[in-house]
Amino acid sequence: MSVASVEDLHVLVDAAMGRIPVDTLFVNAQVVDVYGHRVVPGAVAVKDGIIVGVRFDGRDDAPLPQAERTIDCDGRYLAPGFIDGHLHIESSNVRPAEYAQMALARGTTTAIADSHEIANVCGLDGLHFMIEDAQRAPLDIKFMMPSCVPALPDEQAGATITAEDMRAFMGEHAGAVFGLGEMMNTPGVIGADDETLARIDAASLTTSGLVDGHAPLVAGAELDAYTTCGIIADHECTRPEEALDKLSRGMYIMLREGTCSHDLAALVPLVAEDPARMRRCCFATDDRAPSDAQATGMIDNACRMAIAAGIDPVDAITMATLSTAECFCLEHGHGGAHEHRGAIAPGKRADLLVLDDLSFQEPPAQVYTAGTLVAERGRFVGAIAPAGEKVAQLEALLRNTVHLPQLAPEVLVYDFHPGEPVIDVVPGNAVTGVVRPESAEGLRRIMLIERHGRAVEAQAAGIDGDGPAGVGLVGKHVGCGWVRGFTITDGAIASTVGHDSHNVCVVGDNPGDMRVAVEAVGQGGFVLVHNGAVSARLDLPLGGLMSDKPADEVAREHDAFVVAARAQGIEAPLDPIMGMIFLPLPVIPSLRIRPEGMFDTVSYTYV
Amino acid sequence: MSVASVEDLHVLVDAAMGRIPVDTLFVNAQVVDVYGHRVVPGAVAVKDGIIVGVRFDGRDDAPLPQAERTIDCDGRYLAPGFIDGHLHIESSNVRPAEYAQMALARGTTTAIADSHEIANVCGLDGLHFMIEDAQRAPLDIKFMMPSCVPALPDEQAGATITAEDMRAFMGEHAGAVFGLGEMMNTPGVIGADDETLARIDAASLTTSGLVDGHAPLVAGAELDAYTTCGIIADHECTRPEEALDKLSRGMYIMLREGTCSHDLAALVPLVAEDPARMRRCCFATDDRAPSDAQATGMIDNACRMAIAAGIDPVDAITMATLSTAECFCLEHGHGGAHEHRGAIAPGKRADLLVLDDLSFQEPPAQVYTAGTLVAERGRFVGAIAPAGEKVAQLEALLRNTVHLPQLAPEVLVYDFHPGEPVIDVVPGNAVTGVVRPESAEGLRRIMLIERHGRAVEAQAAGIDGDGPAGVGLVGKHVGCGWVRGFTITDGAIASTVGHDSHNVCVVGDNPGDMRVAVEAVGQGGFVLVHNGAVSARLDLPLGGLMSDKPADEVAREHDAFVVAARAQGIEAPLDPIMGMIFLPLPVIPSLRIRPEGMFDTVSYTYV
Repeated sequence: MSVASVEDLHVLVDAAMGRIPVDTLFVNAQVVDVYGHRVVPGAVAVKDGIIVGVRFDGRDDAPLPQAERTIDCDGRYLAPGFIDGHLHIESSNVRPAEYAQMALARGTTTAIADSHEIANVCGLDGLHFMIEDAQRAPLDIKFMMPSCVPALPDEQAGATITAEDMRAFMGEHAGAVFGLGEMMNTPGVIGADDETLARIDAASLTTSGLVDGHAPLVAGAELDAYTTCGIIADHECTRPEEALDKLSRGMYIMLREGTCSHDLAALVPLVAEDPARMRRCCFATDDRAPSDAQATGMIDNACRMAIAAGIDPVDAITMATLSTAECFCLEHGHGGAHEHRGAIAPGKRADLLVLDDLSFQEPPAQVYTAGTLVAERGRFVGAIAPAGEKVAQLEALLRNTVHLPQLAPEVLVYDFHPGEPVIDVVPGNAVTGVVRPESAEGLRRIMLIERHGRAVEAQAAGIDGDGPAGVGLVGKHVGCGWVRGFTITDGAIASTVGHDSHNVCVVGDNPGDMRVAVEAVGQGGFVLVHNGAVSARLDLPLGGLMSDKPADEVAREHDAFVVAARAQGIEAPLDPIMGMIFLPLPVIPSLRIRPEGMFDTVSYTYV
Repeated sequence: MSVASVEDLHVLVDAAMGRIPVDTLFVNAQVVDVYGHRVVPGAVAVKDGIIVGVRFDGRDDAPLPQAERTIDCDGRYLAPGFIDGHLHIESSNVRPAEYAQMALARGTTTAIADSHEIANVCGLDGLHFMIEDAQRAPLDIKFMMPSCVPALPDEQAGATITAEDMRAFMGEHAGAVFGLGEMMNTPGVIGADDETLARIDAASLTTSGLVDGHAPLVAGAELDAYTTCGIIADHECTRPEEALDKLSRGMYIMLREGTCSHDLAALVPLVAEDPARMRRCCFATDDRAPSDAQATGMIDNACRMAIAAGIDPVDAITMATLSTAECFCLEHGHGGAHEHRGAIAPGKRADLLVLDDLSFQEPPAQVYTAGTLVAERGRFVGAIAPAGEKVAQLEALLRNTVHLPQLAPEVLVYDFHPGEPVIDVVPGNAVTGVVRPESAEGLRRIMLIERHGRAVEAQAAGIDGDGPAGVGLVGKHVGCGWVRGFTITDGAIASTVGHDSHNVCVVGDNPGDMRVAVEAVGQGGFVLVHNGAVSARLDLPLGGLMSDKPADEVAREHDAFVVAARAQGIEAPLDPIMGMIFLPLPVIPSLRIRPEGMFDTVSYTYV
């Protein structure tokens, strides 16, 4: 269908012409017109979830259509629903149906989600669970096929998804996958690796045919090679010059404002310098802690920050709606009225925000998706369908995914070698530095322990020989190293969330507490240990990544965990949860920990 | 394929990385960067017709790739090839392979062509001929399926194309049709006519899924209903307020600058007032006389005029390239690198213009399509494939399409009734006015004679009874009326080009010369008669619409025709050819002539 079935279209046209009543009529609104780049007083009519009329005061003086329900906006603003250009639901530690409520409450009505976290643990079963659970909520989540599972060919992840696997899944679940997710394997792309190119090629089987990008600091010939493959967007820019390099090569630039990565303010000059560039700039949260989502928001937070940095509010809204819709080919073209969005105009989905003002200091007064009220003043008021049998079956596949080897105390006791490379944490940023200190003063131990079964199997096969349990695993399935700036004191933090393979990462100031933390991880989550005892925990039994509890509860547990960690020396702006999860990520500069040891992600070598 | 086959991609990436030589390297260029909204000195690399590298001086200092051929731009500008958003090849009175040469010579590298003229005469055979003949030339012509053949359900055209016919043709010629052409049947759309909606629905079978628009003066609820159907663009705006109504409802606005319609200057304030709107504004020629195309240009002419009216040159180029590409979903998304265009960036078609400056006073210094040089300084230098057997067979179907009844002299002699509605010609605009003069002073007779066989058949069936030949046809297949402002003196003009049904239209100041003109029409074209003898002619044997001669020759014949007509009282700005062809068009305001008589196109009634 190009627009809708002929029958649907008949109804919409009849409603637009006033021959039958519309469902909802928004009157006395200040309509944010992202096409005309203005705010105009007027009315908006909705039928069957589709906008069928936009009447501008002073231009359109014909009588308004009859309506089943009239909503008097009382001079408040009516804006299109926000589109979050890139995010990982798992990073909010809640399942999709819970994530949806948080996002909708802050005005996100469409989310472009890459589920490569759960896919790294559970493979395509993980993606399948996400897709099905998302159906329960009125947030339109467009799922991308994870392109890099594992993140690097030799990563010790829980699954591998090849181009052939992708094609099989998309054949079996036609229409369920929207595009190919962030292509992080830059060496694979620029090296013209056949499997990597075959994955890019597999994007043709997705709904949009699009390949999303991830190319921190890629420039020059390498950026040429990367963009030659038609990769559409990048959310990893940290400076305007880098962003302009990519924008000028045809990539949409996502000004990311997440929990761990705060790039928006630094990138604002790209648009402030020349507002014409807003057509190619969007917003993305990427990774967002649930407490942050609830306290400061999602894309509304990005708009607020952009406005604070000098961007015109209509421009900010335009980037959050029209530009993102255009980036993902959701504004017009194939797909039909139920798919088209990004603006308040006839023939688009009625994803609408009622706003008291355009400052985004507060959550939207009301949020509508496809014409239905789903949130009011930061509170979700829509309907969530119960998890049916299909969801329950898939959910079961996501449990019991943590398989740890036995680790004798000796394994956690290792020396610091003066001048050895140490991860230098950059609070609020996924990028890390590297330092080579002469002493271990102020440093913490960091270990990464494989948890998908390889270590357990190796141990069963006798890898430890006659030594203490786990010694044979070191450098193979247990990596050991040091970190600066992660100031946990009198204890340790362990976690099953460690991008992207989600092995168990533990950081501590003493081996004993580190061992307690690892043992307390159970079936997944974050554990904080203080002087030998668990002082806080956040259970994440779904793949070791997501809670099975409501988002509010997870946010409270998250907050309590942070408070406890603050008492143990983790000082703001370092977040004890979000600050930890990227330490193993081998596709972002500069130094990371892997089960084999410390890894330089720039030279792609162990150090 | 999302981008290209894996093998193709491998080659492109290798070229981008410098592992193999590129085909062409443009150096010392001022690159017009429509994404970054700037001009930057740099180099552009092309491989297999695709841009694989864009290096900006000062940012990208890595060595340039080796190249088979290096083109030193010597500081000249390098801009993306132009995209003409809406045009009818037939209006240039040449066949597609000839049109292509004219358009390429002026920098148009992609043309969105609606062949509803030839389709109104020859049905889908006409479209098929256009598609096949276009393959001979290096202009990428995207053919739209004519949506309104005939233009109104009761038009006396040579063919009818139903939704079912469209589906059958697209089934038989997969990938040959790009979208659904301008939907001119506004009453059908807003009336939710089933056949009209079924045609809109049939767009889903086209490559792009898009439905192009045509909605002069449509506003309010009717515009809501029209845009609810997802119709993407309008090229019929004549005032900025009208354009803003449509732009704000999600339509792309085509600033049309053709031969008969000159709307660009009037619409420039839409963009000049707020350059942010350029993302939703494009250029189109719609109908362009070959002599105009050669003398003043195509989209380059639109750019020149826009710049003269105060638009920044980079903005004008952006509208002519990126905005049009986005409108037609050609910039990214499904389709692959060979389809993507609208900017100079890796992964896009190497459609490039070398420009001495950005004034567009002269044709481009060089024009490249998919990396191949095809024009230099207004002269086509590319290759045209010979017309093969398939083209010859289809071409044969386009000949012998003029079937005129016998008309006795009495038929052309009719009285003027004081106060009767008279067409008021608006030179340079397809819109006409209506006047009701008290005398015939200064008026001319206008007649429209059905030529597709209905009149001949009715005559054979005895419609004239005992009267003079043709009297029985009046008001049925021969319309009679009066026109003001079409100042032909001592003679008449007759033509087989009369939008959209292309019946024979004749205008004259005396019935005798009008009869001579009609009889001289032969198998199609324009005929000018002076005091009883043919004084100029332009033969158009292909459907009565297109010449079988080269464009240069057609342009010369066209010029000679205009000169002869000027000598007979047709004064500039009225064009004796382009000014005549819209007089029968029943879908543009206000008064038109039809075979049944004078027709009010606003109220859709005969007057």
